[in-house]
Amino acid sequence: MDKIAVIGVGSTEFGDLYDRAINEIAVEALFDAIRSSGVKKDDIKSLFIGNMGSEMFVKQEHLGNMVSTLADLPVPSFKVEAAGASGAVAMRTAYHSIQSGHMDIVGVIGVEKMTEFTKQSETQGALATGLDVMWESNMGGTLATGFAMMAKAHMREYGTTREQIAQVAVKNHQNAKKNPKSQFKINVRVESILRSKMIADPLRLFDMTAACDGGSALILASPEVAESYDSDPVYIHTSKFGYSPLQMHLRKDLTTLTGTTFAAERAYENVGITAKDIDLAEVHDIFTIAEILAIESLGLVEKGKGGQATEDGVTSLEGSIPINTSGGLKGRGAPLGAVGVSQAIEMYEQFKGLAGDRQIKNIEWGLTHSMGGTGGTSLVTIFGR
Amino acid sequence: MDKIAVIGVGSTEFGDLYDRAINEIAVEALFDAIRSSGVKKDDIKSLFIGNMGSEMFVKQEHLGNMVSTLADLPVPSFKVEAAGASGAVAMRTAYHSIQSGHMDIVGVIGVEKMTEFTKQSETQGALATGLDVMWESNMGGTLATGFAMMAKAHMREYGTTREQIAQVAVKNHQNAKKNPKSQFKINVRVESILRSKMIADPLRLFDMTAACDGGSALILASPEVAESYDSDPVYIHTSKFGYSPLQMHLRKDLTTLTGTTFAAERAYENVGITAKDIDLAEVHDIFTIAEILAIESLGLVEKGKGGQATEDGVTSLEGSIPINTSGGLKGRGAPLGAVGVSQAIEMYEQFKGLAGDRQIKNIEWGLTHSMGGTGGTSLVTIFGR
Repeated sequence: MDKIAVIGVGSTEFGDLYDRAINEIAVEALFDAIRSSGVKKDDIKSLFIGNMGSEMFVKQEHLGNMVSTLADLPVPSFKVEAAGASGAVAMRTAYHSIQSGHMDIVGVIGVEKMTEFTKQSETQGALATGLDVMWESNMGGTLATGFAMMAKAHMREYGTTREQIAQVAVKNHQNAKKNPKSQFKINVRVESILRSKMIADPLRLFDMTAACDGGSALILASPEVAESYDSDPVYIHTSKFGYSPLQMHLRKDLTTLTGTTFAAERAYENVGITAKDIDLAEVHDIFTIAEILAIESLGLVEKGKGGQATEDGVTSLEGSIPINTSGGLKGRGAPLGAVGVSQAIEMYEQFKGLAGDRQIKNIEWGLTHSMGGTGGTSLVTIFGR
Repeated sequence: MDKIAVIGVGSTEFGDLYDRAINEIAVEALFDAIRSSGVKKDDIKSLFIGNMGSEMFVKQEHLGNMVSTLADLPVPSFKVEAAGASGAVAMRTAYHSIQSGHMDIVGVIGVEKMTEFTKQSETQGALATGLDVMWESNMGGTLATGFAMMAKAHMREYGTTREQIAQVAVKNHQNAKKNPKSQFKINVRVESILRSKMIADPLRLFDMTAACDGGSALILASPEVAESYDSDPVYIHTSKFGYSPLQMHLRKDLTTLTGTTFAAERAYENVGITAKDIDLAEVHDIFTIAEILAIESLGLVEKGKGGQATEDGVTSLEGSIPINTSGGLKGRGAPLGAVGVSQAIEMYEQFKGLAGDRQIKNIEWGLTHSMGGTGGTSLVTIFGR
């Protein structure tokens, strides 16, 4: 049996957590997850920490040891990094470690503290380390310019409109209003997005996510052990990794996230389902256009029809395939190391019927999708009973 | 069966590799290991990359994806970080991943490129991120001040002399002269060390390791698969993680690396041996004093007698427990993310009889010991047949 149970979830709020250090944010999320799970702290055999850039953002490496020390939890603890996919990769590494038979209960923490820089250029510089330093970031390339090129290609190739792309943000902020822990509980209109400051043509300020602090945590357990804590657990059924060339200039097609498609196909096959069986998904909407690319690349909507589907409400809470019910990175918030873990928390709450006004009914299969950089790394994780 | 085979090893030289980018260094080591193993590149199912600080040293995150792209190896690939123990933790993560049953042949790469900074203070600042930023590095604490406090405590408590501590460097540079890939093939005398520039009393320049570039790689395989490539493989029998508080002020005893002792005791127990069964060890001599602390904390020499044992030649190539036959971090070189992997290469070469003038005879059990920061993270890995 490949599946591993999620027996507890925990989180800080996402935003400018100026009053807490990064290890305090991580431990707050962890302790929240421990309380939620019912395990004793000392039952936890290892910690897996997803974090993109604490050494840049807050001058702190060795986060595993820092977190262990503050939590008074003297177990194996280390950081896993794959840019924006760090949290999802930490979760996958934990999943494999339980399957190795060496440990039965572990903690996964995703954490980032991004708001201490005083200059916007420092933040952009830190994020651009997820691109190729020699061929992209040193030449002025940023995450925004990368996704802007993909947006232009998608508009040209499929007639996707600027308004359709903006609709992703409108929807995700509406969903965020229904999530108590989200950062941006706001109404935004398509017109305001299209009037906001130009960042990288055609993407504007409100197409982006914001620098953010926050932590998310999960307690994972082997199926045998999980039964003692939860009579009907939510399970991770598979977690697949997809690769695409890191550099934009090495990609043959800018309108498909090929790593995402690769990971999704293997994930569906591994579980024995197809994209049609997925009832809801959290995807890596680090920019508005990224959600459209993701839902197409995952096979959740037809290729080229992601913009139209978004405009038609197919991906809204009432639609046939609700996307980013949590608010996504756009609305829930985007502390990068935390987002892959935060997506799993939304799955847990949806499966457990804890999602309040954003609750989706009759869920059998859910999916989370996380990316590093401009999509070089993709993770697809499938949740079910 | 817990053991996992090392079926190939590869490395760049260690030093100032100004002509190669970090991903080129990593891939050079990987391809060297692939050739050594006899596997086809496409047989490799995943890459595990140990790296401490590429985002600081060369402004490059997302190293997993960078390396996959350059190697044209579209498999799961991500970074594992625990300061100076990053390479050893990557190796342990790979070991667990094979045991999970998801993969049978994987690559482990340790890599660092530390020589691009133009100011010494930048390098020290980057290394100090392995300490607690709020309580140590922001107050002027560095790796050197941490190990200097441990040296003073050991001298006071056990009468260890400055000359005995210096003898670690003398020995390791002698060993390095017999290792073709080592960085510092030099004769140093105790008197020169004691006349070198004071860094943090009582530690001087020649007690330290130098900023360095380099990459090391291993090909690991399940025992079943390994048989096709090597009729008598070298095996990793166990890899144990030990925790100590990150911050020096939280430690009750500055003369013991408590995390190292914890890891070693569990490693010996897991394999069913004692410290007396270990025939040789590579330990984390990031400063001279660290080797003395390590051999005592591992139980290889009596507590408090590490200095005397070093002076008496017990840890030399001809001694009863040869330590750092490769030259160690001092002589072989210390690209931090690579060192845990480089230690495993020395084990492979010693077990295979490939160690030339530094060959130790009749080896049954070997040990590698790696640390993060001032010892907050410790890894102990045991090699045998």
